[in-house]
Amino acid sequence: MNKTSINVFNLLESELSLVDRAMRQEYQDTHPDIEAALNHLLDAGGKRVRPTLLILFGKMFDAPLDRSTTMAAAIELLHNATLVHDDFIDGSLLRRGIPTLNAQWSSGATVLTGDYIFAKAAHLASISGSIEHMQLFSKALMTIVVGEVSQLFSVNGQTLESMYYDRIYAKTAALFTLACEVGALLGNASEETVSAVRAYGTAVGCAFQIIDDMLDFSSAADTLGKPVGGDLQRGIITLPAIYYFADFPNQAGVNDILNHKNIPGQTMLDLIEAIRSSDAIERTHARAREFISEGIQALSEFPSGLEKDALIDLAYFVTDRTA
Amino acid sequence: MNKTSINVFNLLESELSLVDRAMRQEYQDTHPDIEAALNHLLDAGGKRVRPTLLILFGKMFDAPLDRSTTMAAAIELLHNATLVHDDFIDGSLLRRGIPTLNAQWSSGATVLTGDYIFAKAAHLASISGSIEHMQLFSKALMTIVVGEVSQLFSVNGQTLESMYYDRIYAKTAALFTLACEVGALLGNASEETVSAVRAYGTAVGCAFQIIDDMLDFSSAADTLGKPVGGDLQRGIITLPAIYYFADFPNQAGVNDILNHKNIPGQTMLDLIEAIRSSDAIERTHARAREFISEGIQALSEFPSGLEKDALIDLAYFVTDRTA
Repeated sequence: MNKTSINVFNLLESELSLVDRAMRQEYQDTHPDIEAALNHLLDAGGKRVRPTLLILFGKMFDAPLDRSTTMAAAIELLHNATLVHDDFIDGSLLRRGIPTLNAQWSSGATVLTGDYIFAKAAHLASISGSIEHMQLFSKALMTIVVGEVSQLFSVNGQTLESMYYDRIYAKTAALFTLACEVGALLGNASEETVSAVRAYGTAVGCAFQIIDDMLDFSSAADTLGKPVGGDLQRGIITLPAIYYFADFPNQAGVNDILNHKNIPGQTMLDLIEAIRSSDAIERTHARAREFISEGIQALSEFPSGLEKDALIDLAYFVTDRTA
Repeated sequence: MNKTSINVFNLLESELSLVDRAMRQEYQDTHPDIEAALNHLLDAGGKRVRPTLLILFGKMFDAPLDRSTTMAAAIELLHNATLVHDDFIDGSLLRRGIPTLNAQWSSGATVLTGDYIFAKAAHLASISGSIEHMQLFSKALMTIVVGEVSQLFSVNGQTLESMYYDRIYAKTAALFTLACEVGALLGNASEETVSAVRAYGTAVGCAFQIIDDMLDFSSAADTLGKPVGGDLQRGIITLPAIYYFADFPNQAGVNDILNHKNIPGQTMLDLIEAIRSSDAIERTHARAREFISEGIQALSEFPSGLEKDALIDLAYFVTDRTA
């Protein structure tokens, strides 16, 4: 985190600790192993960007704090549930440098833990939200899952930049948008305002995922907490690869990857290194900054103040972060 | 199905076709493979007992039909989502004589299909239910998942009859109870009435699962659509086994099973055959009939009429069915 972002997260320290408490709240008839698994996930951290967005928009539009923090917990749990199933499907063994559930548990236990977190997320949403929020919440979950299925079943077209944006919307921006929208809806925001809030959430969410995809190539493995170039190794073609492949269609391995064929390990490592040291990285970064500009632009009519400043800071943090 | 039960399901033919249509409704941005998988599941049938219960209580208390059928679809989808993940976790290859999703698909696709059905169920519930219904809905899902986790992690105590009832409540009766309760709540039922409705749902749900567990031993494999004694082979000790083990603790294999040790295949088959031909089957059936009596008793104060008759018929159908 850079200096600016520390200010944003510090600003909400007490609210975020309420979110944390809500996420860890145990219910009657819960199961100790499942709560332990959930706590392990939550201890692994994560930046709590989604709760931060929800609470900032909630504060901007005078939402009741208890409802904001509970809905923020619901959305962060929904995010964690999708991560558990994602890691299982990808076979990922590390996330944020910490062993994933599926690295330690049976597949059955991992899938059920994800299901339990979904249920808990829906329950928190149902005790703090309205039926309209539940509709948005369940729709976002459908979007996320359909996005994952599309990625799993994709047989072509992965290299089209436009389809990449659809994928990152489903993967990340849908939930960012939901967090922002629910924050504003819990307050007294008008319909027109909510539309601008959504635009901010979508732009920042897309930028966030683009930077994630860039860091997957440009970071060192120890900063990343997982292997460099892992996306490409799993056959997922992200923006840096899309840019690079367009410039160097004849480089060894490129054609095979585009045709879903396996390539030799050394060819893959060479290709990852080539992308790392090409200008595809900086072009990807620039694309993320364009999204961030759009997001900040969407805030232009909003009242000045601490929350607006924090939302702008948060947007810059998304593109400036290195992990 | 026996003669009586056919009448119950015929009575609601048009309502159940509305439920079916709602379950198959496609959303924007859906994925064709996932819809195909869902339709495969729905074509495989199932008795639609949960929708039938919800609609009957809805009719009894004058609930709006469109809300009843949509909530019934939501609950039946929730049930199907849990089946998809269950079959995946158990590694079951057949259900109702038809290949399960995990017999045909990758584990990733199967898990995501279950997730999508959860999301679709939640979405249907959110467009037809109130926030109170969403709370009940998400709580029921938590109960079901915690029950599955408990079964997966159980290391002892599986042979206590009281723990068996906790398990079947979580596995089946929680969702039966939800279906009945939501039907009554969508209508104009008083709080006292809803309490009796819940009692009926829980009793009939427990009886339904007890009969399922009995049929797993007593049916022929071709009627069952899966191997006889499959539960015991997967280490799940149900009521017929609990009764038999209490009577014959020294029979070959019993002690090892209770200590979670593998036993030779022939010993397992002999044990299944011994349980099949013992009075544990009839005692299990009798226990289910006791639950059914309790369930019917719970209806005693309810207005006479077609719906009450159908609910009584449905209760008898649950214990009389042979598949």
